[in-house]
Amino acid sequence: MTTQRWKLTVEYDGSPFVGWQWQENGMSVQQALEEALFKLTGQEIRTTAAGRTDAGVHARGQVVHCDVPKNRDAKAMSEGLNFHLKPHPVAVLQAEMVPDSFSARMSAVERSYCYRIINRAAPLTFEQNRAWWVARPLKAKAMHEAAQALIGTHDFTSFRAAECQAKSPLKTLDEFKVEQDGEEIRCYVRARSFLHHQVRNMVGTLALVGAGKWSKADVATALAACNRASAGPTAPACGLYFMAVKYTD
Amino acid sequence: MTTQRWKLTVEYDGSPFVGWQWQENGMSVQQALEEALFKLTGQEIRTTAAGRTDAGVHARGQVVHCDVPKNRDAKAMSEGLNFHLKPHPVAVLQAEMVPDSFSARMSAVERSYCYRIINRAAPLTFEQNRAWWVARPLKAKAMHEAAQALIGTHDFTSFRAAECQAKSPLKTLDEFKVEQDGEEIRCYVRARSFLHHQVRNMVGTLALVGAGKWSKADVATALAACNRASAGPTAPACGLYFMAVKYTD
Repeated sequence: MTTQRWKLTVEYDGSPFVGWQWQENGMSVQQALEEALFKLTGQEIRTTAAGRTDAGVHARGQVVHCDVPKNRDAKAMSEGLNFHLKPHPVAVLQAEMVPDSFSARMSAVERSYCYRIINRAAPLTFEQNRAWWVARPLKAKAMHEAAQALIGTHDFTSFRAAECQAKSPLKTLDEFKVEQDGEEIRCYVRARSFLHHQVRNMVGTLALVGAGKWSKADVATALAACNRASAGPTAPACGLYFMAVKYTD
Repeated sequence: MTTQRWKLTVEYDGSPFVGWQWQENGMSVQQALEEALFKLTGQEIRTTAAGRTDAGVHARGQVVHCDVPKNRDAKAMSEGLNFHLKPHPVAVLQAEMVPDSFSARMSAVERSYCYRIINRAAPLTFEQNRAWWVARPLKAKAMHEAAQALIGTHDFTSFRAAECQAKSPLKTLDEFKVEQDGEEIRCYVRARSFLHHQVRNMVGTLALVGAGKWSKADVATALAACNRASAGPTAPACGLYFMAVKYTD
């Protein structure tokens, strides 16, 4: 049977999932999507994602590829998948036919994340599990300035999870922008790829700066130490959103 | 025992509630708040709200008053209530002492609502129960223009729920703004007060304009008919947010 490779742009609320990847201990986004593919096509179809998001992490623009038996148009593909994805909070925003050489993971040249902090005294209502609640006042401007110490190519060992499987701790961070919008602080980061927990570890460290406990120089020192214990704590998963992936061509 | 009158600004996700008001058939926001007041003070304290929102309707700035035994400061009041409100998605954003003459309901001179529509082909993930999902493309600009036919003092019988208990169907609508922000369409309305379901009935009618089925003149004709059957359907509760209340002084 001939197959067509598809590129799917996928949005999900990560709160009810064990993460992107199949796991023994609960429902993953990948399982929800592969079950919808099975219901739509009658075939067991494997999916590959640009980023294997952790439990509780959200996506606005995860990219996934898979090979599906031919003769299906883009509208039937996205509408059919969305129909079978119910009631999971997962939606296919776009379905496009791509060459067999396209890999959601290997062809990616840039990934971007947004980390949302709600900085206010009152506990969260709408944003429960959708953002990190920080009650102590944070200075977003100081966080932004300190974040610039992380831009460029560095050994990011200080911001790397113990379980990280990357061969090298060297990564190039292209952008780190911290913006305040009312009670919300949004951290935008952009790089070819990230180490495991790198964004959450960087945000957890910058929160120390925002609270006035750390300076920009402390962040640079922590980075240079190449030691996880030198940097700040890991910010919670619920604030992290996988926003977009860029590909060449 | 002497009491102090408090003005509470309250935010809630309306999805799990039967509405603001106590009801036999489930948990109301009022019940959640009065139970928190009881846990905090040991007293049964009644609350009065500026707007009795329906089941599933949200609030960003509901205003409530209540009389509480004296000698409690504003910080202890809001933090204590927020502690006891858990795990309900209800938060006290602000607690202020006010004169006994203040009434959250009777002293209000202006109420504002926002109605959120997500207009896209893909089903909702993050916004499930938080916005009205409309898959067919809507023209926000046409909706905005047609909405201007509703501004001013009119008999709003065509947009009034059958169960509405207001003595008169005459209301003065001060503002109706429809704005597009990416895939989201937001309707902002402002008036001294509204009839039951008035905002949802107006939005449901404007959605017909957005879809190209109705013109601005059709909206004016529906208003002039003073007959509920002449206007469009009621937009779902989940898109409606009670935003703010204004008081004199």
